[in-house]
Amino acid sequence: MSIFSDLPSLLAFHIGHISLKQAQAVQSHFGSLEAALHSGKEALSATQILKPAQLNRLFEEARLQRVEEAMLWGEQAEQNWLPFGSEHYPKLLQTIDDAPLLLGSRGRIELLQDPQLAIVGSRHASKQGLMIAKDFAQHLSHQGLGITSGLALGIDTAAHQGGLLGIGKTIAVVATGLDRIYPASNQALGRQIAEEGVMVSEFPLGTKPLTYHFPKRNRIISGLSVGTLVVEAALKSGSLITAKTAMNQGRDVFAVPGSINNPQAKGCHQLIKQGAKLVESGQDILEELSSQLQHALMPKNLPQTQDLFTAETHEKLTQKILPPPSHASSILEHIGYDAIGMDELVVLSKSPVYDIQSQLMLLELSGHVEKLSAGRWRRLN
Amino acid sequence: MSIFSDLPSLLAFHIGHISLKQAQAVQSHFGSLEAALHSGKEALSATQILKPAQLNRLFEEARLQRVEEAMLWGEQAEQNWLPFGSEHYPKLLQTIDDAPLLLGSRGRIELLQDPQLAIVGSRHASKQGLMIAKDFAQHLSHQGLGITSGLALGIDTAAHQGGLLGIGKTIAVVATGLDRIYPASNQALGRQIAEEGVMVSEFPLGTKPLTYHFPKRNRIISGLSVGTLVVEAALKSGSLITAKTAMNQGRDVFAVPGSINNPQAKGCHQLIKQGAKLVESGQDILEELSSQLQHALMPKNLPQTQDLFTAETHEKLTQKILPPPSHASSILEHIGYDAIGMDELVVLSKSPVYDIQSQLMLLELSGHVEKLSAGRWRRLN
Repeated sequence: MSIFSDLPSLLAFHIGHISLKQAQAVQSHFGSLEAALHSGKEALSATQILKPAQLNRLFEEARLQRVEEAMLWGEQAEQNWLPFGSEHYPKLLQTIDDAPLLLGSRGRIELLQDPQLAIVGSRHASKQGLMIAKDFAQHLSHQGLGITSGLALGIDTAAHQGGLLGIGKTIAVVATGLDRIYPASNQALGRQIAEEGVMVSEFPLGTKPLTYHFPKRNRIISGLSVGTLVVEAALKSGSLITAKTAMNQGRDVFAVPGSINNPQAKGCHQLIKQGAKLVESGQDILEELSSQLQHALMPKNLPQTQDLFTAETHEKLTQKILPPPSHASSILEHIGYDAIGMDELVVLSKSPVYDIQSQLMLLELSGHVEKLSAGRWRRLN
Repeated sequence: MSIFSDLPSLLAFHIGHISLKQAQAVQSHFGSLEAALHSGKEALSATQILKPAQLNRLFEEARLQRVEEAMLWGEQAEQNWLPFGSEHYPKLLQTIDDAPLLLGSRGRIELLQDPQLAIVGSRHASKQGLMIAKDFAQHLSHQGLGITSGLALGIDTAAHQGGLLGIGKTIAVVATGLDRIYPASNQALGRQIAEEGVMVSEFPLGTKPLTYHFPKRNRIISGLSVGTLVVEAALKSGSLITAKTAMNQGRDVFAVPGSINNPQAKGCHQLIKQGAKLVESGQDILEELSSQLQHALMPKNLPQTQDLFTAETHEKLTQKILPPPSHASSILEHIGYDAIGMDELVVLSKSPVYDIQSQLMLLELSGHVEKLSAGRWRRLN
């Protein structure tokens, strides 16, 4: 169920806002999180692993009740708690340096394992910027990429809307508890995402929108994604924090240029000057990703500090590639280690050419097949 | 007068559209261009250095008359013929692989030795694009950079207009003979440039605007300049040829981004994808140039194939730096190898701070002074 401990103990630490690394240290000290909780506040305090505020939250009077509520929440349909290292915890997110201890999810958890692109940008975007974000999202989702964003107004909203229109759907990473939707004007969109896509949060149920949670949340948006696209961002905006985090995580950063007279383009231009790739279309991103994706998933990006885990977990972490994207498995079974052409795939899969092309792109992106010259493909693993 | 030969013989080869490399080969074979002309058409033909059409032009009946006319043209005030390797031939242009054999000039030839930035772009630019080109040109000219362009409508025109407003002025490189101005609607601008700036051409007097001369001319625009800025350009446009030539010449290429929905921005975006530097202001260019200019003038960019010249010419070619910019000599005399501050420069030069700052930037750009911390400067050579 968890590589750490039982779920109730994990939820207690989650409710206490305790980080993965702290929980690892506690586990290392006490053998398990449950054992630590049994040892009591003073014994935990003596280890100096947790801050006083965290200790107070961990041993607050309402703890058992809140854990109980969270357990009940997680038993509802399409609502899940995903402990770090567990089967449904997103594999790419697991490779970042400060991955969340526990993720809550509402919606289709299988989407979390598919290749995703983060699309973020200004809350005060121009109409043109909103159209661009939606167009990119729709095009890439249609190609099977999940579109990950933060459910904010402006570019985030447009990105989610575009993502919902394609098979890749959309992933909302929120900075509140999953029992509420913020901002209020995105209530309907949030509900739709929880049905057709998936919404995730590292914050406990009941958490209100707090300013300082948003930058922290941004590392999950970029950490879930093979790359981050910024569409319209002012200088010193939250989107640039997400982009910088993506760079630090070794992921690609893409930016859409704009007029030098548009203040909402300045953030994108700054990113391009710093090495982000200028993109004009979804196709630009797909081409770049297909050459970059495998690098992004190479062991060099794996954290070196998580030596507490079992050998089995380590093996999972060092897998070079993602599981086959959920939309592309039907075509993958027809592709072997010998090259196969489009004509044969049409016959074998009984699917239309357009569908096959989309699935092939996705399989190429996630490193399962390689495209050969003369329109032929071959399985890689 | 010329490293090759007497001016009349050079003009004969110039009128015959004979390249520098061909002229070098002829000189190598006959000892001088004059001797080659005396040897006659058949002897020259036997060397197979020139194409039949070139031979016919070189020995056309009207040759002596056209040379005579050109000699007379060059005796008028502010009209000059500048043979490759001669004193007033632009030093930076001399370093490109296919430098012109002879340049004609109308106007202030001293501007040809000053650091220049090429600004090129679409003939069908948007109003915003025209404003951007003029603003960049004015700002950079005000800082002492000459603005080099091709006298075409659109961005070229705006760049020249902006350049005329600053001390750096403007250089028009045309694809016609210097006795005509093309396009007709730029008559007044052309005349103003020939008075306040300088106009140059490698084409003989009387040459009409011919489509295939324009791309050839573009190598001179980039070759005269430490860098080339592209403001609005469609895909597959002449501006991209100039930019590509600049890259091949080892010079910086800058591009102004725009909306991805503007077809006139696509050329700029393509350039940025290929490594051109995205710039939003003249200041961006100055900062980049001050770190790049000296590299651009290093011997690595000198042609390796011009072994026919005298040692003296070689020495000139391998000078690492340009002569002091003409606008900045008044301040240079006050800067020694010991650091000097702004206060002292104000006292010594009796110039206002703004003027001094502008001159210092220029001297820094052309590698004559270096800026130290704490607002002090030091002479480098």
